Amino acid sequence: MDVLVNGLAQTTVGYRDRGLQYGDGLFETILILDGQPCLWHRHWRRLTHGCKRLGIPLLAEPLLRQEVEQLARGRTHAILKLIVTRGEGPRGYRPPDNQQPSRILSVSDWQAPPEELYRDGARLIVCNTRLGLQPALAGIKHLNRLEQVLARAEWSDPSVHDGLMLDQEDRVIETVNANILWRSGRRWHTPSLQRCGVAGVVRDLLLDLAGGAGEDIAVADYALEDLLTADAVYQTNSLIGIVPIVRIGDRVWDSSSWSHPLVSLLAQQVHRVGA
Amino acid sequence: MDVLVNGLAQTTVGYRDRGLQYGDGLFETILILDGQPCLWHRHWRRLTHGCKRLGIPLLAEPLLRQEVEQLARGRTHAILKLIVTRGEGPRGYRPPDNQQPSRILSVSDWQAPPEELYRDGARLIVCNTRLGLQPALAGIKHLNRLEQVLARAEWSDPSVHDGLMLDQEDRVIETVNANILWRSGRRWHTPSLQRCGVAGVVRDLLLDLAGGAGEDIAVADYALEDLLTADAVYQTNSLIGIVPIVRIGDRVWDSSSWSHPLVSLLAQQVHRVGA
Repeated sequence: MDVLVNGLAQTTVGYRDRGLQYGDGLFETILILDGQPCLWHRHWRRLTHGCKRLGIPLLAEPLLRQEVEQLARGRTHAILKLIVTRGEGPRGYRPPDNQQPSRILSVSDWQAPPEELYRDGARLIVCNTRLGLQPALAGIKHLNRLEQVLARAEWSDPSVHDGLMLDQEDRVIETVNANILWRSGRRWHTPSLQRCGVAGVVRDLLLDLAGGAGEDIAVADYALEDLLTADAVYQTNSLIGIVPIVRIGDRVWDSSSWSHPLVSLLAQQVHRVGA
Repeated sequence: MDVLVNGLAQTTVGYRDRGLQYGDGLFETILILDGQPCLWHRHWRRLTHGCKRLGIPLLAEPLLRQEVEQLARGRTHAILKLIVTRGEGPRGYRPPDNQQPSRILSVSDWQAPPEELYRDGARLIVCNTRLGLQPALAGIKHLNRLEQVLARAEWSDPSVHDGLMLDQEDRVIETVNANILWRSGRRWHTPSLQRCGVAGVVRDLLLDLAGGAGEDIAVADYALEDLLTADAVYQTNSLIGIVPIVRIGDRVWDSSSWSHPLVSLLAQQVHRVGA
């Protein structure tokens, strides 16, 4: 079994589901290792935060966790996608009075990125598609993802790993698939996600770890120039963990400055089951 | 029968449909009168324009038209919602190489608004939710509608008919459910939809009719103050046609200036079958 829709082994969703009608919902992409979800508590926390922001009733954590484990069972290396929508409703944007959220869980086997990616670094283009500014939706992993779809459609060259996205006012925000951070001298930097962007669970973990590791990460607004003059740049998400970036457009970085205690610490923690 | 999914009488959609996964698609809301779709050519034109903008392959118009008529048959007054998505695909934002768009048509009986609405006018609040600026998606009726969901959740008072939406930079754009236009002296005005908003089919019809009627409609950027100092304000969409607005927040308009030849002309044309 690899799909559960509201607890049932089925692969379809009612056409009246507001996830389809309006993108009215949220999702999480969870790494499964040896039958267990990694960083579950952070995924769960982001999901509940998103539900609160959108006014979607919270689901019971034990129920979701049990369904996740049911799908993850026996899989050594897989991806689990968990979608929560506002459920079905009558015509119209207005959220129904009696909301019954839908949950759609699906799992698929996953090949970890090759060692070369971590050794040689990822190659990025700078996308033409810009992120719109929308503080009401910033940070949460909602289902309105046309900006990412348009950005991802900008390249088909398989040697390009990801695309850097700026916002409408030229700030660096994230990549199509990951968050971004960089080191300039002794200082770390990662963009603020108050206006747009998705606050990834690994970024969240990184911000928590930094203090204990004696590192300082500034969360602020940055121009592309700030990023391009950095000593080392990385991207993070729940599947790849942390990957150095070797190239963004014409700018190429040398791998000699990639290794760092904070990077090693984060890489270990990402694969912690249940963390 | 009231639902057709890819031509079949079913009410479910595969969970892998990108409409659900990313809101990767478009929709039209079409008035059905006496078994026929009103303003079909304009709906079709907007839909194909949206498909081109998103890079979704165009469907065959005769096929869609035939399915629309199949659902509309025998219904004197109904709403038909037509969703077109990029179809199913593997995991990830990247549009699949071999796209097979999905079409999801559903019809439901509809009660026309009471005569009082046209006589007494609509009451609007000004929503706190602002529209984000995204030229890549502006104008088309795509499935990323969380902004409208959040805005519509701002009121539950049934005496409020709609909510006015501004963009992030305080320009007047549209309402949650309709486009907006106003008359100041002899001049008509309607907001530009280059940065956000949905270009409605009735707004489109209005812009075409105005020239022939010797009226001039300025399409430009406007502040809330421009709207509130207007002599008469209206909202338009494919279901209500054109409705005068009696109140926005604290500002109240007198019905004496509502009637106008352009308004009467538009009202007649909206219900033209096939136009």
